[in-house]
Amino acid sequence: MSGVPTSGDERTVLERLATLLGPPPAGEVWAGDDAAVVENPPGHLLFSTDALVEGVHFTRALSSLEDIGWKALACNLSDLAAMGGRPLAAVVALCGAAAADLDGIYRGVTGAAERYGCAVVGGDLSDAEEMVVTVAVLGTTDGRPPVLRSGGRPGDRLFVTGPLGSSAAGLRLLRAGEGESNEAVRRHRRPLPRLGEGTAAAELGASAMLDLSDGLSLDLDRLARASGVGVELITVPVAAGASEEEALGGGEDYELLFSLPPGREAAGLFAARGLATPIEIGVLVGDRDRRTLRGAPLPLLGYLHRLSGGRPEGE
Amino acid sequence: MSGVPTSGDERTVLERLATLLGPPPAGEVWAGDDAAVVENPPGHLLFSTDALVEGVHFTRALSSLEDIGWKALACNLSDLAAMGGRPLAAVVALCGAAAADLDGIYRGVTGAAERYGCAVVGGDLSDAEEMVVTVAVLGTTDGRPPVLRSGGRPGDRLFVTGPLGSSAAGLRLLRAGEGESNEAVRRHRRPLPRLGEGTAAAELGASAMLDLSDGLSLDLDRLARASGVGVELITVPVAAGASEEEALGGGEDYELLFSLPPGREAAGLFAARGLATPIEIGVLVGDRDRRTLRGAPLPLLGYLHRLSGGRPEGE
Repeated sequence: MSGVPTSGDERTVLERLATLLGPPPAGEVWAGDDAAVVENPPGHLLFSTDALVEGVHFTRALSSLEDIGWKALACNLSDLAAMGGRPLAAVVALCGAAAADLDGIYRGVTGAAERYGCAVVGGDLSDAEEMVVTVAVLGTTDGRPPVLRSGGRPGDRLFVTGPLGSSAAGLRLLRAGEGESNEAVRRHRRPLPRLGEGTAAAELGASAMLDLSDGLSLDLDRLARASGVGVELITVPVAAGASEEEALGGGEDYELLFSLPPGREAAGLFAARGLATPIEIGVLVGDRDRRTLRGAPLPLLGYLHRLSGGRPEGE
Repeated sequence: MSGVPTSGDERTVLERLATLLGPPPAGEVWAGDDAAVVENPPGHLLFSTDALVEGVHFTRALSSLEDIGWKALACNLSDLAAMGGRPLAAVVALCGAAAADLDGIYRGVTGAAERYGCAVVGGDLSDAEEMVVTVAVLGTTDGRPPVLRSGGRPGDRLFVTGPLGSSAAGLRLLRAGEGESNEAVRRHRRPLPRLGEGTAAAELGASAMLDLSDGLSLDLDRLARASGVGVELITVPVAAGASEEEALGGGEDYELLFSLPPGREAAGLFAARGLATPIEIGVLVGDRDRRTLRGAPLPLLGYLHRLSGGRPEGE
């Protein structure tokens, strides 16, 4: 079997991973027992999972082991951001990694965990033919109502937390053998979950929010359908080096898309927290079938990628 | 690619899965948003994950899709049982399942979920070459301290919640083309997490507990090491149709192993709840290097299976 760890017994590996995770705070129990024990804040809990599959979401030729670990946690944290939440804890099920690769993957996971304040409290290791990194995250909104996809109303203004298309542009450069030190390549390899931005948008009373994992066009359609509204876009903010098609359909940008009721302004609170000012891109309208960009029909680009198959790297 | 869903678009599939999950209670949000929103009881939370990998933990030749789904949730619930907890919610990341197979797998997952009172609140679907079903579970001990592996003390008596070796015996029969309707085969395909037993043991003041996933010999060694004690076994309860070797080293029985301080009795509370009387199998001793069965050295059987590779079906 390829991808099967061949050196180190399980106990040694698990002790090494426990070292990378660090010690838990008092009252908590992390890796080493049947389940982790974690603190429990007031309010509802957020709970989500996402898997990264070799050959579907990443290739080892274009991403380092650390990048893969980072991305596996980051795309899960992005789901918490999209609810207006912050992370509490994550567990990592790692299948098909060679024993020699575990350190690199875990360094990526714990690097993202430290940056975003998420405890990695446990996991599972298994043989497999191909590498699959599945993370589950637990989060909280600290008592605030979570921001769902379904709360958008006609007249609400639409914002994104940054320009789009970096990840797709970075993947294009990597496939062409270019751009190792390019910013778009960095964003492709190490997406940045917008946790601070998601919390700020929630505090401002965002009516609907999601993270842009499959491309603005497709994710916007999801928000509009869930909210029962239409969309008129006035602009698509395109990241440096990306095309408008990449911004609309590339996916994996992990910027947040959110709607604000009339009269709410985002710039002040975001600036006060040192966050980039959200970019206004359009408005929700009552005609639920409407999808326009600058008055013309909006193409439904983007990838239904989890069931589409055949792409060498997720985008 | 094999294992890639080829029919049905993602939206249709996800709507179908949402139907199988059923509606959430008021205030909760299940599949369909970026993360699930679940109720949050008092006390610490339990959080765990386990992956089932095709060719490592199951083969489709010997288990139905429903069996695979059942087992994926059941082995996670068993980890909660082993802490003395009860389940709150689960998320399921399903990689490499054909669209036509999703219903069967989800029926197995939801069957176990209904039987054990665990809400399946979300998940992820992805292409992959081989099937990997990764479940993460969230649980609670309702304010009781969780029962760790590390609390066993010399003089504590050791119990298991049932006779052992069924799963290994069932796998042996299946490989020989026998025993489709055999009880051992049923236990191999559909392990029963001992949630009621785990709660009862916790209420009785169990000092240490774990679930027998890798064989009594190996799991007992884990409990002893974590607790810093030795073990003297007086008996190994062997399930009907199984050998003592299968009981000691077979694994995947998912019975619970727990220790009780002197003077505590398990039979009364278990009987009052309609649970089988736990079987006393030995005692913890102060010599941490001691591992005996009926006075003779206990062989360290069992499988360090997540890093061992090469077994056609997990055991």
